[in-house]
Amino acid sequence: MNDRAFPIGSPADVAATAHVFVERLDDDVLVTGDDGHHLVRVRRVRVGETVTAADGYGRWRTYVATATGRGDVTLEALTEVAHEPALLPGLTVACALTKGERPELVVQKLTELGADGVFLVRAARSVVRWDADREATALERLRRVAREAGAQSRRARLPVIDGPMTLADVAAADSLLVADRRGVTAEEIALPAGGGWTVAVGPEGGFDDDEEHLLADAPKLAVGRLVLRAETAAIAAAAALAGRRDPAR
Amino acid sequence: MNDRAFPIGSPADVAATAHVFVERLDDDVLVTGDDGHHLVRVRRVRVGETVTAADGYGRWRTYVATATGRGDVTLEALTEVAHEPALLPGLTVACALTKGERPELVVQKLTELGADGVFLVRAARSVVRWDADREATALERLRRVAREAGAQSRRARLPVIDGPMTLADVAAADSLLVADRRGVTAEEIALPAGGGWTVAVGPEGGFDDDEEHLLADAPKLAVGRLVLRAETAAIAAAAALAGRRDPAR
Repeated sequence: MNDRAFPIGSPADVAATAHVFVERLDDDVLVTGDDGHHLVRVRRVRVGETVTAADGYGRWRTYVATATGRGDVTLEALTEVAHEPALLPGLTVACALTKGERPELVVQKLTELGADGVFLVRAARSVVRWDADREATALERLRRVAREAGAQSRRARLPVIDGPMTLADVAAADSLLVADRRGVTAEEIALPAGGGWTVAVGPEGGFDDDEEHLLADAPKLAVGRLVLRAETAAIAAAAALAGRRDPAR
Repeated sequence: MNDRAFPIGSPADVAATAHVFVERLDDDVLVTGDDGHHLVRVRRVRVGETVTAADGYGRWRTYVATATGRGDVTLEALTEVAHEPALLPGLTVACALTKGERPELVVQKLTELGADGVFLVRAARSVVRWDADREATALERLRRVAREAGAQSRRARLPVIDGPMTLADVAAADSLLVADRRGVTAEEIALPAGGGWTVAVGPEGGFDDDEEHLLADAPKLAVGRLVLRAETAAIAAAAALAGRRDPAR
């Protein structure tokens, strides 16, 4: 394993070096907005300190802070752009959320666990409904949660956050799995032919009959034998499959 | 798998039936205090409704509400006492927490995932220190979190919540494992000779040299290859080992 390229830094570095997501890994970067504010006000980055930056797609670079403003930081590259290999097989979790479940927690933990996508599913038994206005706001908030979790855990890649979508949208995926306590363990799940796994996680009360029909051919992945809340099942499924995923060469 | 005995109820029941922990599973039970308040005010249990109750040690029973007060409920047994088998091997997670980690989240998720114990470790690099006064309050709060999570996810067993303790206390356990991304997957971990696994999860920055020395002989359990925050590693380790645990016969 190449410790330098993957993940960014060693455990001992995690607390010490600030990490930020930027649009482009230019030689000189000005970080403004929420990220700039976070670096200056929360992480208290000072001139001369090392900062790593990533583009959210696996590319990252080490910088030094050359100037700080009230809510912005100027960074100058110290190294060439490095690359954090993708984890293969890919992993997307499509989670049906109900009242009392916390999509923020799901997005935060799946980002830390290296998921490539987190989709929110509007299942028949999902009690929570988003209207069009709330949808945009909620997605924006969840993408911010992913950025924060990615910065905190020093990822170079961020998951795609999308939804709400129906189970029919999810069921079209290749290598679909369903989280189900009557299923098999992660080690018994076949590797996907190409692409990655998509794990569908049902709402409290389970999927209804029409939805079950859509999922009839999908292998069932069990994480233990207990009934789990949707948010816990989503996190547990990613943790259980993590042992099957390796950095691409 | 005996669905009736383990876990309590089917997924479809989870939302429908209130569940509560009581000291004794007598034929008649009066639920008061926080639990009584929760049943009456939050779950809105009415006379004639079914309620399940468990003792936290694996015994549970189905009741009917025969009277409700402003913050209490009288229950009358409908069935004999049933037994939820333990999951074997046992699983205790000993987690070193640092600033920004959330012990409540660890306790909540490990309860849902069926852990037998959650210990909080005062590691050399743990930034958070509890004084004696705060210790009692914090433990009391975490035990309440476990009860709430256990009620929500309809467990008959609750984990032992303890700490803060030193790593030396933890290192004395049989079948000790250490969460480490350079380790092996859950499937490669040997079954314990007796009792259960204890997984030590280090703080941000890792264990120090003295602590590493205590853990030198413990097999390393990896949950994927990414650096995880302590709270995430604790939850992920329990999820990864869940596939190795089965209800005792």
